[in-house]
Amino acid sequence: MTEKRPFDILNNALNNNVVVGLKGGIEVRGLMVSYDVHMNIVLEKAEQLKDGEVKRGLGTVLLRGDSVVYISPS
Amino acid sequence: MTEKRPFDILNNALNNNVVVGLKGGIEVRGLMVSYDVHMNIVLEKAEQLKDGEVKRGLGTVLLRGDSVVYISPS
Amino acid sequence: MTEKRPFDILNNALNNNVVVGLKGGIEVRGLMVSYDVHMNIVLEKAEQLKDGEVKRGLGTVLLRGDSVVYISPS
Amino acid sequence: MTEKRPFDILNNALNNNVVVGLKGGIEVRGLMVSYDVHMNIVLEKAEQLKDGEVKRGLGTVLLRGDSVVYISPS
Amino acid sequence: MTEKRPFDILNNALNNNVVVGLKGGIEVRGLMVSYDVHMNIVLEKAEQLKDGEVKRGLGTVLLRGDSVVYISPS
Amino acid sequence: MTEKRPFDILNNALNNNVVVGLKGGIEVRGLMVSYDVHMNIVLEKAEQLKDGEVKRGLGTVLLRGDSVVYISPS
Amino acid sequence: MTEKRPFDILNNALNNNVVVGLKGGIEVRGLMVSYDVHMNIVLEKAEQLKDGEVKRGLGTVLLRGDSVVYISPS
Repeated sequence: MTEKRPFDILNNALNNNVVVGLKGGIEVRGLMVSYDVHMNIVLEKAEQLKDGEVKRGLGTVLLRGDSVVYISPS
Repeated sequence: MTEKRPFDILNNALNNNVVVGLKGGIEVRGLMVSYDVHMNIVLEKAEQLKDGEVKRGLGTVLLRGDSVVYISPS
Repeated sequence: MTEKRPFDILNNALNNNVVVGLKGGIEVRGLMVSYDVHMNIVLEKAEQLKDGEVKRGLGTVLLRGDSVVYISPS
Repeated sequence: MTEKRPFDILNNALNNNVVVGLKGGIEVRGLMVSYDVHMNIVLEKAEQLKDGEVKRGLGTVLLRGDSVVYISPS
Repeated sequence: MTEKRPFDILNNALNNNVVVGLKGGIEVRGLMVSYDVHMNIVLEKAEQLKDGEVKRGLGTVLLRGDSVVYISPS
Repeated sequence: MTEKRPFDILNNALNNNVVVGLKGGIEVRGLMVSYDVHMNIVLEKAEQLKDGEVKRGLGTVLLRGDSVVYISPS
Repeated sequence: MTEKRPFDILNNALNNNVVVGLKGGIEVRGLMVSYDVHMNIVLEKAEQLKDGEVKRGLGTVLLRGDSVVYISPS
């Protein structure tokens, strides 16, 4: 059996929708097109969420890894 | 007697349910399928909790180690 | 296919307008004229936003990378 | 006279009850079964406290060193 | 064309007035007389601002780089 | 004249009472029995203070250096 | 002309009164008797200030560099 590693989930989520939670309670949903080892993440067609509802469109957005709390593929 | 180390508890908890507390007071419960030395953790069938009750389902989620406060196998 | 990396979005956004979210909920919009590997960013003709509206003009401003939460080209 | 060092207190507290204060005001009491140089700590039979009273049982819990504020053997 | 870098703005601002935003929402205006790679900054004839108005005089002040959020030459 | 260094004050305060201020506004007073280069500090006969009054006894306590804001020998 | 550096201000302020702002909004005034490269600072005859007024005397106090926001010689 191959050992699983946390970053596998990021690689598998490329070109799929993810929800990213940031420090300060901000939540963003979009298509993940790139990431790096610092968990810097680029989403396209991104939307900021509030209580699960769309608050506003963000288009393309780079989320700084240091601010990321969680990432959930949808 | 073998010396115990904190990460032993993570290894033993693989493929079992854990509750993870994050900075900002967020608490998530799910099946731990991977972790790394930074305490990055992947849960499957994850649920966000509020006061011990399920607030919403998250499915698969990567929790960034830098945001982890505590991890408790259930 | 060439692998995309998060910093590509910064390079592509040079000399274009971006919105930058900072810790503490501050949001700044302006023309990005430089950045570095720490995500330090210089904007010209910058404006501080509040709920998407212009709160005040900042002119040229250096945003410290450590404070950056997200960057969105407009 | 032998010079004392802060980590001596952790070594002496192994297999004894300790109270650990975490960032965000959380306080946890339990039997300390392991620790490492990052002050990651594992407690067994752990209980979360509020104003000195038991709020809920946690069983076994790994406390991330980066979140630890103080540790007091009881 | 010479590539611009974020620290250029600091070098150009030497001996000119700048406004510096710090963590915790503090804003200080003054004559920048020195800085270093950590963004530690010394202002002379400095004034603490509140909503753009002068709150009090600070004279000479060293701002610790780790606390800097943004720097704007005026 | 010998140059003074900040850690001299810690060495001189060994086996004397100190008041330590921690992040989050917690203040602890006690007999300092050890410290290290990270400013991890062990106090004995420690008491948590609130507005200068004793809030509760802590006995022996290890304060994590990363949480220390100030240390004042009494 | 000699290039000025931020730490010059600390060296010049030795044995003079300074006001130090700390994270969490605490402000302390006193005679600076030592500092190091981490901006750890020792003040003697120190007083904690609130809105510019003396709140209480602290005597000798070591301020941890990581908590320092600004330092202003008076």
